[in-house]
Amino acid sequence: MARRVREHLDATLPRVWGDLLEVAASAREQLGQARTLIEPDQWQAALGGEVERLTENGQLEHATERLLSKLERTLFDSPKTGLVSLVGAGPGDPELLTLKALRRVQAADAVVHDRLVSAEVLAFASPHAERYDVGKSAHGGGSTQRDIERLLIDLACQGKRVVRLKGGDPFVFGRGGEEALALARAGIPFEVVPGVSAALAAPAAAGIPVTHRGLSSSVTIATGHDTSAHDWHALAQTSGTLVFMMAVEHLDTICAQLIGHGRPTSEPAAIVQWATTSKQHIVLASLGGIATAAREAGIEAPAVLVVGPTAALSGRLAPEGTHAEAVAV
Amino acid sequence: MARRVREHLDATLPRVWGDLLEVAASAREQLGQARTLIEPDQWQAALGGEVERLTENGQLEHATERLLSKLERTLFDSPKTGLVSLVGAGPGDPELLTLKALRRVQAADAVVHDRLVSAEVLAFASPHAERYDVGKSAHGGGSTQRDIERLLIDLACQGKRVVRLKGGDPFVFGRGGEEALALARAGIPFEVVPGVSAALAAPAAAGIPVTHRGLSSSVTIATGHDTSAHDWHALAQTSGTLVFMMAVEHLDTICAQLIGHGRPTSEPAAIVQWATTSKQHIVLASLGGIATAAREAGIEAPAVLVVGPTAALSGRLAPEGTHAEAVAV
Repeated sequence: MARRVREHLDATLPRVWGDLLEVAASAREQLGQARTLIEPDQWQAALGGEVERLTENGQLEHATERLLSKLERTLFDSPKTGLVSLVGAGPGDPELLTLKALRRVQAADAVVHDRLVSAEVLAFASPHAERYDVGKSAHGGGSTQRDIERLLIDLACQGKRVVRLKGGDPFVFGRGGEEALALARAGIPFEVVPGVSAALAAPAAAGIPVTHRGLSSSVTIATGHDTSAHDWHALAQTSGTLVFMMAVEHLDTICAQLIGHGRPTSEPAAIVQWATTSKQHIVLASLGGIATAAREAGIEAPAVLVVGPTAALSGRLAPEGTHAEAVAV
Repeated sequence: MARRVREHLDATLPRVWGDLLEVAASAREQLGQARTLIEPDQWQAALGGEVERLTENGQLEHATERLLSKLERTLFDSPKTGLVSLVGAGPGDPELLTLKALRRVQAADAVVHDRLVSAEVLAFASPHAERYDVGKSAHGGGSTQRDIERLLIDLACQGKRVVRLKGGDPFVFGRGGEEALALARAGIPFEVVPGVSAALAAPAAAGIPVTHRGLSSSVTIATGHDTSAHDWHALAQTSGTLVFMMAVEHLDTICAQLIGHGRPTSEPAAIVQWATTSKQHIVLASLGGIATAAREAGIEAPAVLVVGPTAALSGRLAPEGTHAEAVAV
């Protein structure tokens, strides 16, 4: 950025080169994160006219203020500034998309989506919409979180209606909060469209009410991915149903930690893979046996682990044909 | 039931009266809960023909088996048997209904709904659909849970496509588990259509990501209604975000219990009333001050309480104009 400003100034404004660069650098610093949103041609336009005159007159502070004001108008009041919708795409079944999410996807100029968003949901987008697959795998493939945030800001600054499509709900282990903060810092208008989270839909699809009179009066949802972040003592102490998202990779650790902190090995547990889709597969076992049972049944990601007495209701309330054979609670 | 069978038998089959009644009583007992589904004319039809002949021949056990088999076919294979869909209507904004829920409501012969389901969602139903408002208030008005379960079974037994519409998600404090069990016991085909739960959508609509890198790696959802059911020590110990549904009535108790069990009074908290609707109203305060702040802001049910560091993000991420004035975190 500095190089381009310098090149421009070198070519067109040799007289006030030093002073104008100082003014530009000062404004750039005061803009904070928003500076990344300003295109070279916007700098060029803003540095001309009144800012140039004030700088020539030696009124550098006044020039900086004027420049900032011009850049801010460019950023925030421009009809070119788009809108970013952080949209939950639901747990898998494309029919579990909300009406609002459907409308946002249909109206999008650009769709930025995760790996787990289904082709059926993406098919709702216009054929003219740009598509960006920023899918992150558990092992760190795909775009970094900062790349994604920059992409959303860039697209919005091009005046586009951007839909950031996330599996489930954007604010439940979707890192939607980080994206919302990045957008807020950059002054980009955004909205959050909640979706059906797999944290609750996966148990439901397996016939497990996460709360149930006499069995569970609360539900705790935790990530199974970043297991070192947890206070396992507190998690094991919770009296309600426990739901672990992305539970396959560290399934042994999760069960061992819960048992090590006092949960009975005999407690009912269920793994639900590809919940709400035609590939849905449920394994029921005890907390002590679920990791082995899941391996024997060939369970892979994506899957959700449910621990607690309500998990046993799956045997009576799950749709027929979705339980693994030869596994008993 | 027994009286009607007896009347029928008295009138038409005096010879085998005693034996047939014994056969009927035995079958009735073995049917369990499902016996409530059998209409008098179905008993009459089933008791004729082969069952009557076997009884006349003194083959009472064989007759009972045949009767049971006929009645079960009546119950489970009859094209008259309907389907009950336990459907989540979402948190308030009718646009947050899922596509699947919309289709079920549009196809329903009968809609059985709670008080909090919006008129806009009910308007999706056919004008020919029967509507039953079984709204239960916090103070026990409306139908009892058993009344509702009987109504669902009755409607399904009339061969109707029944939609049981619940605010939010049917399996998150919706007593959907109890209704599903009642339907399973009665042999009525049913399905669960998950919805967007206010437990997660209310925080999202208030700009609160319930999980956020570095701030919260889990979320616990509890009822604020039945406060005596909770293990308050365990709830206060949880390291993640806490969400209390139906939090207004016992707000003082909830905050006092959390503080009494070790949560800091200075912890950020938010109340979200009428989340996701045009009437949405947010109050931010500390855990120690939120009950007073909510009263001063005139917050009433329905409202959700969010406790934890992520609640403070509401100040930066909530849509403009939805915060109460004059309340600071």
